[in-house]
Parts: sequence; structure tokens; C-alpha cells
Amino acid sequence: MEKPTLPKGTRDFGPAQMAKRQFIFNNIRSVFQKYGFQPLETPAMENLSTLTGKYGEEGDQLLFKILNSGDFLKDADKTNLETGNWKLVTGDISEKGLRYDLTVPFARYVVMNRHEITFPFKRYQIQPVWRADRPQKGRYREFYQCDADVVGTDSLICEAEIILMIKEVFKGLGIQDYTIKINHRAILSSLAEICQGGNETSLFVAIDKLDKIGEEKVKEELRNRGFADANLTEVFEILNFKGTTIEKIEFITKKFANSEAGKKGINDLTQVLQILKDFNATEEHVEFDIALARGLSYYTGCIFEVKINNVAIGSVSGGGRYDNLTGVFDPNDKKSGVGFSFGVDRLYDAMEELNLFPQEAQISSKVLIAHFDADSKKYGLRILQQLRAQGIASEIYPDAVKIQKQLDYANKKLIPYVIVIGSEEVKSGVLTLKNMKTGEQQKVRVEKTIDLIK
Amino acid sequence: MEKPTLPKGTRDFGPAQMAKRQFIFNNIRSVFQKYGFQPLETPAMENLSTLTGKYGEEGDQLLFKILNSGDFLKDADKTNLETGNWKLVTGDISEKGLRYDLTVPFARYVVMNRHEITFPFKRYQIQPVWRADRPQKGRYREFYQCDADVVGTDSLICEAEIILMIKEVFKGLGIQDYTIKINHRAILSSLAEICQGGNETSLFVAIDKLDKIGEEKVKEELRNRGFADANLTEVFEILNFKGTTIEKIEFITKKFANSEAGKKGINDLTQVLQILKDFNATEEHVEFDIALARGLSYYTGCIFEVKINNVAIGSVSGGGRYDNLTGVFDPNDKKSGVGFSFGVDRLYDAMEELNLFPQEAQISSKVLIAHFDADSKKYGLRILQQLRAQGIASEIYPDAVKIQKQLDYANKKLIPYVIVIGSEEVKSGVLTLKNMKTGEQQKVRVEKTIDLIK
Repeated sequence: MEKPTLPKGTRDFGPAQMAKRQFIFNNIRSVFQKYGFQPLETPAMENLSTLTGKYGEEGDQLLFKILNSGDFLKDADKTNLETGNWKLVTGDISEKGLRYDLTVPFARYVVMNRHEITFPFKRYQIQPVWRADRPQKGRYREFYQCDADVVGTDSLICEAEIILMIKEVFKGLGIQDYTIKINHRAILSSLAEICQGGNETSLFVAIDKLDKIGEEKVKEELRNRGFADANLTEVFEILNFKGTTIEKIEFITKKFANSEAGKKGINDLTQVLQILKDFNATEEHVEFDIALARGLSYYTGCIFEVKINNVAIGSVSGGGRYDNLTGVFDPNDKKSGVGFSFGVDRLYDAMEELNLFPQEAQISSKVLIAHFDADSKKYGLRILQQLRAQGIASEIYPDAVKIQKQLDYANKKLIPYVIVIGSEEVKSGVLTLKNMKTGEQQKVRVEKTIDLIK
Repeated sequence: MEKPTLPKGTRDFGPAQMAKRQFIFNNIRSVFQKYGFQPLETPAMENLSTLTGKYGEEGDQLLFKILNSGDFLKDADKTNLETGNWKLVTGDISEKGLRYDLTVPFARYVVMNRHEITFPFKRYQIQPVWRADRPQKGRYREFYQCDADVVGTDSLICEAEIILMIKEVFKGLGIQDYTIKINHRAILSSLAEICQGGNETSLFVAIDKLDKIGEEKVKEELRNRGFADANLTEVFEILNFKGTTIEKIEFITKKFANSEAGKKGINDLTQVLQILKDFNATEEHVEFDIALARGLSYYTGCIFEVKINNVAIGSVSGGGRYDNLTGVFDPNDKKSGVGFSFGVDRLYDAMEELNLFPQEAQISSKVLIAHFDADSKKYGLRILQQLRAQGIASEIYPDAVKIQKQLDYANKKLIPYVIVIGSEEVKSGVLTLKNMKTGEQQKVRVEKTIDLIK
């Protein structure tokens, strides 16, 4: 018999990891709910007609497809089977796929339920997604996304609230040194206007690499793609401008004075910052970054990206405004929305690296009842019942084994207290309470024990 | 463009359903944790080698299989493709499937991590499973299971704790009229011993239908299967015995005096009831039911099944002891365990029918801030910040629309309070607080408002 294994790129989460993950999820969920977002869950499987064509050609290749049930071959085109044309065969033998992200299922949900939904609709969704990517360090085939979106309003209050939510989640997680980068699609457009004739996408792809490969290489790449030196000089004058967010905005206000797009982008950003002030919140952690270019095929307004500083982990959150969530399913129904997402796996890794998980995040019993013999075990059950009645997570070692084995069990499960019961304790009703961290033991009556543990 | 649809047998859970589901999940999770169970999550996808052969032939047919990525046809046997032998082709083009239950992935986890796990291992697992069943009312292709198992001990404390946990979960959910049926595999065996020569499985299958089709039809079925009348009379004397659990046990103790299996079963049940007493708990809701015959191919000890009375919904929980969780993966490693599971969909339906979901289960903001103009909206942001700082879930209507539309929004989202802000309120700092249920309005200062809402 073969030893069982896990599919490539997937993971089990045992008790210790689960506890830490739940710590992150609970934090995010409670902030989402505090800001008026309501939960949604969609099925793991979607029709391939819902998923295909939404993530580009590469995305289509990365969809996990589910084989039709029963005799899936009976409807398959014989010629395609014989010639080995697997791409065409796929369509014949599979009509469902696994969720690739949470945005497309959300859009489908909105389109299907538009008459029941109260707009603006603030929904959050915390579920796994699946991608047939090549697994590598930090990249999995199954991973969770935590999305929050508001759809049906173009109010910039939503953008400001995204910043506030990120700050609040990070505060709850204990992450202190981080940067919320913000930019605007229209500002990127006006940057492109400087380079008349240069391909917009090439420009954005190149400047997005500025952090990684540096100015000279980016310039070289753009020169090779036909960008004129004079234009590049102007672009880099803007990109290289150093200053506070306010100073940056003042600087580009002059630069983009004649650009309609520029004015729109600057106006939006200025308003978002003003709304933050109205919220009595500061700009701390917020950085306007003109080189931030992500999600350019769908974001149409503000763009966000969050990095934890001094940790070698990519962005842990990102988002932006889009003008057309539901248009892929219904061209007559274009709803503006804005949303963002937390990457739980990266947050987890960063928090491990920074040693930020609190001891209390551990999900384990607070007390183990250990016993010397049948009588003390029986006596222990009544104590256990009392502890649980007080809401204290607790357990009794179920078997009759040496006391040391019972203490080992408590240690391995990180149970902080053990109540040791022997014939003495049964007779006197005075229990021995052992603190597993300090090793300290004390003799106390039941009620006192409960108070101490609580 | 086609209107998007959901795959057959799958569902979206919108905010209202999610809130009720989370109410159930949170309840179950907190009881599991209070009893010392720790969380585990396994991937949605498992290797087909892990899943196949574990659920019988019918189960294998109901597994959702995932098409291999890339050119899946290149390794497929040409002859099988040409002859349309889809069963054999399946093995060539698919090597992963979706989780069918939580028990097999749990067994796989235990086998793969046996050296790191602290036994007895108490784990709970709350995740969806997928079955390619024909969808019908109350039967879905994606549904959640909530399992808790203890593996690595044969202590009957675990059985007693399962009863306590069921009671505690039902108390938390507000379910009052229910029955925890309990039986023992060995007692069923001694019942079969009466009918020498009769097929054991036929007997169990038939008596399990007693509730539905009645004594005469069950007898007829068994006669047709060659059971002797004299034996059936004796079997039904036992099945028909009416009395308390204690009386039933006394009765079969005499009947099974010469059956080793019977003695073992009776001894176990008696002990479980004694342990309940030691826990200072009553037998209320517990009913010894000799006709309870479920999971006969894997349960080897106590068997449980829970029904909510006076609701036309099948069992909402069930479980039992098994001797051989990990044996399917490693014949040398047979661990005894006992576990049970809640069926969330049925619990949900029953609670809806009994109208048991509390109003507070709704996940929504507690306050909406409504505003008459730009100034009051701005003023509202500061109030909003104060509410959230107090942990109060709240939101502001993001757009400038008529006040009635804002109130409608609050009504539809079941937000209980609205703070209405106009120029008057901005000037005086005295807010108008509207109770959306009673329609009552009062004028109060900010701090007072927060106290009232809290």
C-alpha cells in the first residue's frame, strides 16, 4: 500500500497553523463587518462559461476543470479525440471549473440577484481559490482570498474607508511598519500622454519594475520600445520627485495642468485625502506613488497596494476602483465599484517572520485534568463539567496512564494549566493546580481554581 | 450574452443566509473548542488514489474528478479513447478529485503526520464536501460537514462527551425537542445471532426501516429473505420492548445473557450512561434504540443519531466509534476513534421551520448615518469614526440622495438605528437618532447616542 500524499501545491493546516490563520481571518472579518460589509459565499464550482475569458488566455489555462459525471466521452467529438486536440476536447468533456478568484463569482452573483440586492452593496467574501499554477515557494494551487467590495456607488468615501480598514486590520494584527501605496489610473494615463506615440502598456509595465531593476534599466527598456529621450526625461522627473504626498500632488498639479485625465486623478486623490481628514484620521502609512501600476486592465480610478516594510514578502493587500464589474455578464449593466483584498498566506508569512502571533492565538484547552486512578478520574469529570459551565475550554485525559504522560500531553498541546487529581484531592476537595509555563504548583479549592484560570 | 447561472446542485449564500449559517457554525465551533477539539483544514483536492475505493462503488461514481492540466490526452490510452471506455480513460486524464467527506482526508492527515501528532488527537473540521449526486430538495452537490473526532483512545468518556456536546450545541441553537438515539454495533450483532443463518446485513437494512414502513412490512421483507418466523418473533419482542433506557438495558441483559457481543455492547452503553452521571449530566434527550443501524460497515462500537422531533427533516447529526480509521492507508496502524458530525443544511432548515434564528444573528451595521447635504455628510464622518472606535458596526450612506432613500437602505439592510444629520444637527451637536423598528426618534448628544446604541 502506497503512503498517501497531498496533491502538488496544496497544504493541510494542522491545529497550530489553523489557530494562527483564524487569528488573521477573525481580525479581517471583524473589521469588514465593523465597516458595514456583509458576508457572501459562492460555490467552489462555477460553469466554465462563467469563468472562461475573464482572466486572459493564461488564466484560462490555469483554471482547474472538472470532468463531467458519467460517460463524459459520449458527447466528445471523435475527430478531436483521435487527433489529440485536447483544447477542443476539454470543452466537450468538462463544463465546470473551480473558482479562480472571488471577483468574477461576485459579479455573477450581482447580475443574477440584481433585483434583490440593496445598492450600494457592500460585500465581503473569504474563501479559497484554485489556480493550476506551477507551485513554488509562497505560491500554492489552493489559497484563500479575503475580498471586500462596494458596488453601486462612485463615492470616494469608499476609497478612504479602504485605507481606514487596512490600518485597522494591521493594528489588530500588530503590524506597525507598512506602506499603503496609492495612485490613480487617470494619473498614469496623463503620464502616458507625455510620451505621445509610445505604447501605454509598455510604459506601465516598465515603470512598475522601477523598484526592482532601477531607473537605468527601465529607461533602456523604454528606449528599445521607441520612447523618445526627451519624453523619458520628463517622465522620470515626475517619477523621481521626492516629497510628501501633498508635495507630490502639488508638483504634478503643475505638470498635468493641461491634462483632463491628470486633473481628474489629482482631484480624486485630493478628495480621498480630505475625506481621511474629515474622518479625523491621519495620512500616516499612506504614500502617493506615481509608479504604482497594477490591475491596469480593470482599474479605472484609485489603485492601492500595501507592503510590509523590511520584510522580503511582496504586497499583502491591493485593490482599486473599477467602472465595469458586471459588464462581462451584461453589457447594459455597468456598475462602478471599488474593492480590495488581503493575501492571507503572505500576511501569515510576514507575521511569522516578525513574530507577531500572540500566544493567545493558540486554540487549545486552557485546562487539562490529570488523574492518578479510577476514582480521581471520576471525580475529575465533575470538575470538568464545572469548568466548562464557566465557558473554560478544558478536557480530561481519557485513559488511565502515568501522570507524566498526561503532563506531556498538556505540554505538547500547549495547555497552560493542569489540575492534578489523586486520592488526596478527592478526599479533601482541595485541588493541585499546575502552571505548565512556570512549573509552579498550588493547592486551591475548586471555586478558587476556576477564578484563577479565568 | 447568456445570463450566467449556477452549476446544478450548488448555491450562493447571500448576507442573510450567511449570517444564519455563521450563527450555526460559530455555535458548533465554540462547543468543539470548549471540549478540547482543535481545528484542522485539508485541501479541497485530494489525489484520486486517496479517495477511490473508500466510499464503495457508488461513492467512486459520485466523486468530482479534476481534469489534468495541459495536454491531458497525451497519456491517454488510444484504444480506450476509440472504444469510448470512459471509465478507463478517467484514470488516464484525471488524477485528482474533490473531497467527498472529511473522514478520509482526516485519516490521510493522521497517517502522514503520525509522528508529529499528540495522541489522543481531538480534531474538528468544518469544510465543504462535494458529491456528484442527483440534486433534489435538501440534497446539494456542495455542502458543509462539521466533524469532530478523537482518535487514539478507546475511552468511553469520549462517547459521553459527544452526547454532552450535542446537548450544548442544541442549547446554543435554541433547539429543545430532540432525541439522541444511541445503540451499539455489538448489540446489533447479538440481535443477528438470534437469527442463525439469516444474512446480517439484510436484517439491519430491514430493521432500520421500521420507523418508515412499520413492523409488518419489515417482517415480510425478512421472511422473503429466508428469516424464520420463530426468530423474527424473538427479534421483534426485543425491538418492541417499551421502557426507559435503563429498563431496555435490563431487558436485553437477560435476553443476551449468553452472547459475548451482547455483553460487550451492554457493558459499553451502561458505562457511557454512568459517565454521563459522573459528569453530573442527565439522560434527558438520550434514547437507547436497538433498531438504530447506521454506518454498519465502519462503526464497531457505539452508534449515534440525532433527530429533531416534530420537524419533517432527517437526522441532523450522527456518529459512532470505529476501530480502524487509518487502516485503509496503513494496515499496520489501526487506531480506534470515535466521532460525530453535524449536518448544517438540515440544521438550518429545521431552525428556519422552528423560527429559531435570533434577530441578533443578522450581520449588519448597527447604525447608518444619513445626511441632508455635503456639510452634514462631512460632519457624519467624524461621528462614524467615533462609533467605530467604540466597536459599533456602522456606515454612512456614501452618496448624496434623498433622505427617504437612505432610510430605505437601512430598512432593507435591517440596520436598527439611523442617525439623521442636517444643518441643525451640525450646528447644535445634538443628533437625531431614529429607531427603525419602532419609528421612534429622539434628540441626543453624540456621547449619549453611543451609549444608547451600545
